[in-house]
Amino acid sequence: MQNSIGRLFTVTSFGESHGKCVGVVVDGCPAGLPLAGADIQKEVDRRRAGEGTASTDRREKDRVEILAGVSGGFTTGAPLCLLITNEDINDADYESIRFKLRPGHADYTAYVKYGGFNDWRGGGRFSGRITAAFVMAGAVAGKLLDLIGVEIIAHTVEIGGIAAKAVEFDEIKKKAGADPLRCADPAASKKMAGLIAGAKSEGDSLGGVIEGIAINVPVGLGEPVFDNLDGDLAKALLAIPAVKGVEFGAGFSAARKKGSENNDPFVIRDGRIVTATNNAGGILGGISNGMPVVVRVAVKPASSIAREQETVDVQKMESAVTKIEGRHDVCIVPRAVPVVEAMMAVTLCDFAMRAGLIPRVIK
Amino acid sequence: MQNSIGRLFTVTSFGESHGKCVGVVVDGCPAGLPLAGADIQKEVDRRRAGEGTASTDRREKDRVEILAGVSGGFTTGAPLCLLITNEDINDADYESIRFKLRPGHADYTAYVKYGGFNDWRGGGRFSGRITAAFVMAGAVAGKLLDLIGVEIIAHTVEIGGIAAKAVEFDEIKKKAGADPLRCADPAASKKMAGLIAGAKSEGDSLGGVIEGIAINVPVGLGEPVFDNLDGDLAKALLAIPAVKGVEFGAGFSAARKKGSENNDPFVIRDGRIVTATNNAGGILGGISNGMPVVVRVAVKPASSIAREQETVDVQKMESAVTKIEGRHDVCIVPRAVPVVEAMMAVTLCDFAMRAGLIPRVIK
Amino acid sequence: MQNSIGRLFTVTSFGESHGKCVGVVVDGCPAGLPLAGADIQKEVDRRRAGEGTASTDRREKDRVEILAGVSGGFTTGAPLCLLITNEDINDADYESIRFKLRPGHADYTAYVKYGGFNDWRGGGRFSGRITAAFVMAGAVAGKLLDLIGVEIIAHTVEIGGIAAKAVEFDEIKKKAGADPLRCADPAASKKMAGLIAGAKSEGDSLGGVIEGIAINVPVGLGEPVFDNLDGDLAKALLAIPAVKGVEFGAGFSAARKKGSENNDPFVIRDGRIVTATNNAGGILGGISNGMPVVVRVAVKPASSIAREQETVDVQKMESAVTKIEGRHDVCIVPRAVPVVEAMMAVTLCDFAMRAGLIPRVIK
Amino acid sequence: MQNSIGRLFTVTSFGESHGKCVGVVVDGCPAGLPLAGADIQKEVDRRRAGEGTASTDRREKDRVEILAGVSGGFTTGAPLCLLITNEDINDADYESIRFKLRPGHADYTAYVKYGGFNDWRGGGRFSGRITAAFVMAGAVAGKLLDLIGVEIIAHTVEIGGIAAKAVEFDEIKKKAGADPLRCADPAASKKMAGLIAGAKSEGDSLGGVIEGIAINVPVGLGEPVFDNLDGDLAKALLAIPAVKGVEFGAGFSAARKKGSENNDPFVIRDGRIVTATNNAGGILGGISNGMPVVVRVAVKPASSIAREQETVDVQKMESAVTKIEGRHDVCIVPRAVPVVEAMMAVTLCDFAMRAGLIPRVIK
Repeated sequence: MQNSIGRLFTVTSFGESHGKCVGVVVDGCPAGLPLAGADIQKEVDRRRAGEGTASTDRREKDRVEILAGVSGGFTTGAPLCLLITNEDINDADYESIRFKLRPGHADYTAYVKYGGFNDWRGGGRFSGRITAAFVMAGAVAGKLLDLIGVEIIAHTVEIGGIAAKAVEFDEIKKKAGADPLRCADPAASKKMAGLIAGAKSEGDSLGGVIEGIAINVPVGLGEPVFDNLDGDLAKALLAIPAVKGVEFGAGFSAARKKGSENNDPFVIRDGRIVTATNNAGGILGGISNGMPVVVRVAVKPASSIAREQETVDVQKMESAVTKIEGRHDVCIVPRAVPVVEAMMAVTLCDFAMRAGLIPRVIK
Repeated sequence: MQNSIGRLFTVTSFGESHGKCVGVVVDGCPAGLPLAGADIQKEVDRRRAGEGTASTDRREKDRVEILAGVSGGFTTGAPLCLLITNEDINDADYESIRFKLRPGHADYTAYVKYGGFNDWRGGGRFSGRITAAFVMAGAVAGKLLDLIGVEIIAHTVEIGGIAAKAVEFDEIKKKAGADPLRCADPAASKKMAGLIAGAKSEGDSLGGVIEGIAINVPVGLGEPVFDNLDGDLAKALLAIPAVKGVEFGAGFSAARKKGSENNDPFVIRDGRIVTATNNAGGILGGISNGMPVVVRVAVKPASSIAREQETVDVQKMESAVTKIEGRHDVCIVPRAVPVVEAMMAVTLCDFAMRAGLIPRVIK
Repeated sequence: MQNSIGRLFTVTSFGESHGKCVGVVVDGCPAGLPLAGADIQKEVDRRRAGEGTASTDRREKDRVEILAGVSGGFTTGAPLCLLITNEDINDADYESIRFKLRPGHADYTAYVKYGGFNDWRGGGRFSGRITAAFVMAGAVAGKLLDLIGVEIIAHTVEIGGIAAKAVEFDEIKKKAGADPLRCADPAASKKMAGLIAGAKSEGDSLGGVIEGIAINVPVGLGEPVFDNLDGDLAKALLAIPAVKGVEFGAGFSAARKKGSENNDPFVIRDGRIVTATNNAGGILGGISNGMPVVVRVAVKPASSIAREQETVDVQKMESAVTKIEGRHDVCIVPRAVPVVEAMMAVTLCDFAMRAGLIPRVIK
Repeated sequence: MQNSIGRLFTVTSFGESHGKCVGVVVDGCPAGLPLAGADIQKEVDRRRAGEGTASTDRREKDRVEILAGVSGGFTTGAPLCLLITNEDINDADYESIRFKLRPGHADYTAYVKYGGFNDWRGGGRFSGRITAAFVMAGAVAGKLLDLIGVEIIAHTVEIGGIAAKAVEFDEIKKKAGADPLRCADPAASKKMAGLIAGAKSEGDSLGGVIEGIAINVPVGLGEPVFDNLDGDLAKALLAIPAVKGVEFGAGFSAARKKGSENNDPFVIRDGRIVTATNNAGGILGGISNGMPVVVRVAVKPASSIAREQETVDVQKMESAVTKIEGRHDVCIVPRAVPVVEAMMAVTLCDFAMRAGLIPRVIK
């Protein structure tokens, strides 16, 4: 088990889907940062189930509590403990299917690894619910990154095979937040919504692709050769349930280009060195180059579907059929968008601290 | 800087392309493992420049030395220090282009991060050369994984847009090793070779995709929620220069599937629980599920090309043109294949130790 | 800031003396350990203020809550979150002396390090109060060590210069727990109590020495050359406020012996290799040798005294006089005894896991 | 096994007493530090066997090699690899006593832990010889600490029960370096030398106490509650073979004082806050307070003595007598003095980097 991430800005996750709470300890946050519950609540609210067809009907108030590390409205330099108490829990939903391994979920691997003692209710530690706590940590990281001008936005670029058209950062910022599917291309979003409605009626689910972009990232973040900016971003993003792939800049399409096409020429613009293109996704040699850091994650279709699925009853060791009755998202992509932002923020914040760019005391 | 990876099986990298040596310290290797220089040499030799058109003309003997941690032919439990002395070095190759930032390389980011003090000769720490040392660590990890039956193979599945046809593990094992491009599909390999020859004549370069597969991986490797098997594999693989994306199982294509298509049904086979398909790539909830662990990495086209490229002279802060005269690979994909295997081995070995599957003393 | 300790059994501390709570996240606890709040409560109760003259009048119920990581009475393999809500808080006690640096306390160093943003009420993070949370972690570690037969006991061996006479482990076990000063020598305890009463009437405080002993420690715990058993024990024990020295076995007195006196001869007893004496304190080369692990810590006299003390007002930057009115212990030694046990348990448990002696799943 | 120490300035140790070499990888050293082999050689030479009666007759040239991390006379930001090749090795010295466990040494614990595969020649990893490599790392750390004015000196304060009289820092600096026993009190040194001569003639050995002092330490080093300055110093110092105790400031004598005696009053001097006394040894709450950091370590008498000793033959599992014929120090205290300085430097440097006081690039 290893539930901590980050070297100087260290996030420790705890809690379960159907336990008492989900939470994080954030260690390494500088003293003097103004921090109120509302700062964090705002981000958590963005992740909560919306009204859209994409999302579960589970409704949590998800009220953020700051248990430690803040005094008089400012961080103290001590570890933060941030908590959300679980409220809307219904164990019974899962009891009947406990030993019928849900395909695509961690039921089987957790059963073996933890000898059946894992909290299986609602996926326990493996539920998307714990990402609510990631978002709390991301909110703190985001406030620290604000101090050095780094801005992060993620948006839905694909659902069910429908790709959004590429738009500029400012337009993403303006449109993605308002869109129910977090997509900056309204036309594509509409088609995606149609697909989601269809999948729902079929008791099926859809996946998609989320793109995260960080701008104003200073040159020099990343600690090669092993703690590369891309390596640690990938690791952080793969902690989000359902993410099955990560690519930077041109990513997999770079593999199909020639060097003369893929290399980003250096040019001087406004007295600064930039690259004319950004196939590198803002990272060269594991270190940020000052261009936007661009990462895309592949989100598999939600594993919980309303259809009957073939599986195994692990207790009886025999074939079985499972049908997941509980609440579940048809497409988790929109809800994962703020989680992508959070994990990017946590990672970039750690590297900014390692580079000495964020002071130990905020004044 | 962070040049160590792994929690219990810890690999620390040092050395530069054009310095005295490249090396690794491997800490945490159990005592009692039979280990000779030849065991490691064998793997390093596989990585060395071959005769094919894909590779550089730099010829290193790359003779492996064990400086510490082995006594009487067995590991002692003390850290291993494994070294390759650099022999075929020609600093002059790079002198003239020192300040003309090579597009696609880490020249600019390293220049800023290390204030110009970085060893720029041949890319220094950012050269593919340091992966020779990764391979040494991988050779040790591979021997430990042998003890529990885990077998790892990587192969070229795409170069320049030409995709190899999918074949079974045993056929990959038989054919990929013998193929100059490490491709298990001879017909595709031939086409790839043609593209490489073409790119060479144009002074250009090509990228591709490498697939790594680990079989017989025990159920239960991975330490969620942050030290996931996929997360740490991705991080380790992104330490290989030129890798721009990583995906597991169905990966990005999973994003285009429905849940009913993508979920791998559990079935009982020979008294064991397996999945009928392997879209998960052997990993559920960040933990191995006993199916083959399948990962694909996108390798960008080599940044060093023989053509003139627009760039900036960072010392004069003015536009410049650079032409890289030195030796360089047209396509590094084949040479990166054993490095993918090495980084998979290092990561899996660490998780096997964390799961308590490899004893502290080998008997 | 670094509030985590332990490599496989990792304890993360949070909370403040006069904040909402003190707590720990315990990551790495194997699944399947029976664990109830009462198991932990029992240990916390031992640390609470007693009726004796040595202790503060602050009375906390210190009710232990398990927020995460336990389901159905067993650990799940997920991180534990253990919490004690602070109840008996009176901020006003400290307001008047906020900027008058209390000698011997961390007021000055915390003020500088955290830019005055540290939670200064009751010492905040630097209060002995946070050791209540250490004890919760120690209770879990202790249960794991039970599985392999390791038993830990600490006792008061000196207060105010009065030394207890040496007694056997079993007698310590029988007597120290019952003694109000945790001293196994009733005659010495009586004298110590007299000194404490005297110091109290003078508005002064006393220090002392605590000895911790672990028996049935398997041979082989410790990971040289840097993660030595003694090194990590010392680090863990120095996290207890007021500890100013740590010694193992003969410790500082070994410095005055000759090799022929200090070397512990190896002998065979009951078919096992033991040492005839135990000047080494159970540790050779940083590794346990199977003899009792014996460590002593020097506890300085409590810094809070009722007398007027010369100091500086850090806000006005002028000389000042401070008089600490609040509740405080005359001698914290007895209350620190269970904390020494807890930190020993946490450290030994981590090393036992690293040595592969505690299974990942308890059956 | 864990052979790395330090979070941002990370030292990884490798090598054995009678293997090919001893060495370190130093990761995290900022770029731009002027560093020549001679800088390191100078420190290593101080540790080498002197002419005095205290030391072994083993004579090593101990020539320092920089294998990586330096280019053009400056550190590059890449990991340093520093090596000393072993030259004066005579395996035969130890062959006859291989299985006869030397009392006081790690022979038994290493035998069990590493299943007999450990390199037993000359103690292998457990030899004082590996501290030559610690000194190399300390030399680098010392150069970084120079940049912020921190100065470290260690000296012998006790040998064989003879205590040196207390003198001021400047006098220690002037006298200890010149004294063959590294003692700043010539009269005491003379008596110590007499004791050593006596012990030598009796085939016995002596221990002692070393005091390390760091001045000009900025206020604020240390990362509570677990990575305390004192905790990490103690851990680093306990990695020196033969150290059995560590105390800070008044240390164990603080346990015998009253609070009114032990508390150091704060006073303003030259516009800065200092303490009138330094019982705290420069550390309050795990954080440096600007006063000299004062630490004392108890060094046990050398375990290798020329006398016959009772022991066990671990292979035959029967009682045996061992007589250590090889070269060995009568008193290792003087040789350990530069090692204490080195470990203090490594630790303080790491904390200075964590506090953001040493830039990532030295200009």
